[in-house]
Amino acid sequence: MAQKPSIPKGTRDFGQIEMARRNYIFDTIKSVFRLYGFQQIETPAMENLSTLMGKYGEEGDKLLFRIQNSGEKAALTPEKGLRYDLTVPFARYVVQHREEISFPFKRYQIQPVWRADRPQKGRYREFYQCDVDVIGSDSLLGELELIQIVEEVYCRLGIRVCLHINNRKILAGIAEVIGAPDKMIDITVAIDKLDKIGVEAVNNELKERGLSDKQVAKLQPILNLNGSTADKLAALKTILASSETGLKGVAEMEEIFDLVNSQLSTFNLELDLCLARGLNYYTGAIFEVKALDAQIGSITGGGRYDNLTGIFGLPNVSGVGISFGADRIYDVLTELNLFPAALQSTTQVLFATFGQDELKYALTWAKELRADGISVEVYPEPTKMKKQMAYADAKQIPFVAIVGSNEMETYTVMLKNMVTGEQQPMSLENLKNSKLF
Amino acid sequence: MAQKPSIPKGTRDFGQIEMARRNYIFDTIKSVFRLYGFQQIETPAMENLSTLMGKYGEEGDKLLFRIQNSGEKAALTPEKGLRYDLTVPFARYVVQHREEISFPFKRYQIQPVWRADRPQKGRYREFYQCDVDVIGSDSLLGELELIQIVEEVYCRLGIRVCLHINNRKILAGIAEVIGAPDKMIDITVAIDKLDKIGVEAVNNELKERGLSDKQVAKLQPILNLNGSTADKLAALKTILASSETGLKGVAEMEEIFDLVNSQLSTFNLELDLCLARGLNYYTGAIFEVKALDAQIGSITGGGRYDNLTGIFGLPNVSGVGISFGADRIYDVLTELNLFPAALQSTTQVLFATFGQDELKYALTWAKELRADGISVEVYPEPTKMKKQMAYADAKQIPFVAIVGSNEMETYTVMLKNMVTGEQQPMSLENLKNSKLF
Repeated sequence: MAQKPSIPKGTRDFGQIEMARRNYIFDTIKSVFRLYGFQQIETPAMENLSTLMGKYGEEGDKLLFRIQNSGEKAALTPEKGLRYDLTVPFARYVVQHREEISFPFKRYQIQPVWRADRPQKGRYREFYQCDVDVIGSDSLLGELELIQIVEEVYCRLGIRVCLHINNRKILAGIAEVIGAPDKMIDITVAIDKLDKIGVEAVNNELKERGLSDKQVAKLQPILNLNGSTADKLAALKTILASSETGLKGVAEMEEIFDLVNSQLSTFNLELDLCLARGLNYYTGAIFEVKALDAQIGSITGGGRYDNLTGIFGLPNVSGVGISFGADRIYDVLTELNLFPAALQSTTQVLFATFGQDELKYALTWAKELRADGISVEVYPEPTKMKKQMAYADAKQIPFVAIVGSNEMETYTVMLKNMVTGEQQPMSLENLKNSKLF
Repeated sequence: MAQKPSIPKGTRDFGQIEMARRNYIFDTIKSVFRLYGFQQIETPAMENLSTLMGKYGEEGDKLLFRIQNSGEKAALTPEKGLRYDLTVPFARYVVQHREEISFPFKRYQIQPVWRADRPQKGRYREFYQCDVDVIGSDSLLGELELIQIVEEVYCRLGIRVCLHINNRKILAGIAEVIGAPDKMIDITVAIDKLDKIGVEAVNNELKERGLSDKQVAKLQPILNLNGSTADKLAALKTILASSETGLKGVAEMEEIFDLVNSQLSTFNLELDLCLARGLNYYTGAIFEVKALDAQIGSITGGGRYDNLTGIFGLPNVSGVGISFGADRIYDVLTELNLFPAALQSTTQVLFATFGQDELKYALTWAKELRADGISVEVYPEPTKMKKQMAYADAKQIPFVAIVGSNEMETYTVMLKNMVTGEQQPMSLENLKNSKLF
């Protein structure tokens, strides 16, 4: 006998229940994207390596899956690689198709990506990304729409979330006013630990990271910021008075909060100066969404980038986008038991029969029910009733229509409710009008 | 400036209109699959090369895209390859997960596959397959359901088709009774040309392919078969009387036609002895679907296989499946102009504004309409009206709601029908109840 087959490490098969749940997540997200006029695109799994290389840092280059050239060129350096994310292919797409695109271009894209990472719990070598971006406009309406989309998606999924928002310009402003413009990331990373380790330890860490006593002293008003978002932004305006970039960041945040407050009454949106995501490409707002009732880190993130397409020769195109983490959303929904029960089976009724004539009788009924949009299976053989019932149980089919000679004579089926165990005879007319399906 | 970016040859980007059309095809097919209780699975893009090698013949092995090992093993022989079709991964899936699966296992799978073929018109290196199979039952109900699915899918898509059906056992029986059991494929290929080149040329070709005069003579009754399907099957029963396999094939076809006739009154189902698809793995029925109004070859095909999982050590599991050719269906729908016009845009109304206050006013309306499930965009800046209109035109958005100071004062929008050019003032209440969306 052949060896039991397997799949490459870090990859997964998705069975029917997992697929139904994943589709529930993607369909929910897509239906919200559509409400805002975002349209789907797809790009090839393989990109030219010249498109991918150098876009994800040195570490990223190493994690690209390279595809061996075919035929005689197999021994030569690979020319193609598997897509590492959806952002770079999107930038490539925009530049390549710029003549056909109507800007602002509102697109979403849901496709797998591949990374030769060391596989571990929750980290895979193949996983789906789900990105939504609007590109070709610097209007902060983009930020508003993405915030509204986040609110609506998680409302529909039933997950309580907090959306953390920061602005790279404010971070740059802070670094600038304390005289350490090259230390922006060090400062943000240290501030991030404030809650955990306290102000003194943060100050020590800042000094270890190369800030002078004077610079650390200058930073204290920022460490002590508190109050409402409006209070914080007002204080930042004073602190950042000498930084044009910093003030621009504060103004952007004021406008975003103003827009959001005019549209969303109760959404959890929090100015979070510790948020330091994607600082090597984001240029304005930075987003991160956390589930309130699960300890799982960020389930959605994104930001504003002013020069995504510059790498492909099309400068000065501003965009803003976010990415929903499907695997983590799946885990949160599982942990909180939020998947609708009805996802388990697509089949609403199974016909189980006692003989060949009954089987044909069942086929005719099945056809009638399917014409009404009801999802029906006919067990393909009149085998032991126990076996047919076990099939319905395993697939969690809620009703079984049993057909024997009695039922054929009376033009009925014996309908069994697989949850309660109750059964009753039903005519085709009654079954169609039963509102059971 | 950087070089204009491109994608690997044989691959494609799908823009929003192509995606809407492709989704229309896939959604139609999926909705029919669901009516019959088929459930979706997905397998990884990468499979171990040991899973793929030797399954597609020598030529197929050459066409596998191999993935370079990562890290230190890069120089060694690749261990992984991209999936070449959905059939082998499905067989691997069934064997690997056999303990979790309830048989008969009804699954569908819609994913891209990759082949290092020479790209040419209509042949790509990455393309989607759309497979539906029932495995773990030799009941001919499987064949019936697939035929019903084909009928329903093409009925919903509006494509008139003929489903050609043959049976490998009949072909084997023919080769057997004329005393040339090893010439089954040669005989079928020659018979296939009957319509085009006539009986004499076919006979010559058969002789060239190594059949004796006596064998060719014995074949004549089959070349002369005509009449109804029932007539043909009756004649075959006589001709194949000495072949157990052949008679089994005839009996299967009789049962399938009997089942189909009891369920489908008008469907074009044709017994076609020339059909010679997949003879190296199909063991019973063979299907091929052709569009009647387009010259494009087969748009769906499949058959019964008795030993698909044997290659992975699980023998004697019978299944039957078909595969819908998404690219060809796309081409037929395009050629016959059968795509619904409404697919072009997902956005139902665009708000175009004359100023910042109008923009906020529009946002409030947009929120109200979206709460009713209407897909709305707000042009993100109060730029030149001409530019906002051009955006609606390019995206084929059917209505534009124009907002100026007049409209704000009267709590209305000026609604412009982008097809007729007509415009009229509308209150929010009227707009919601207008039945325009």
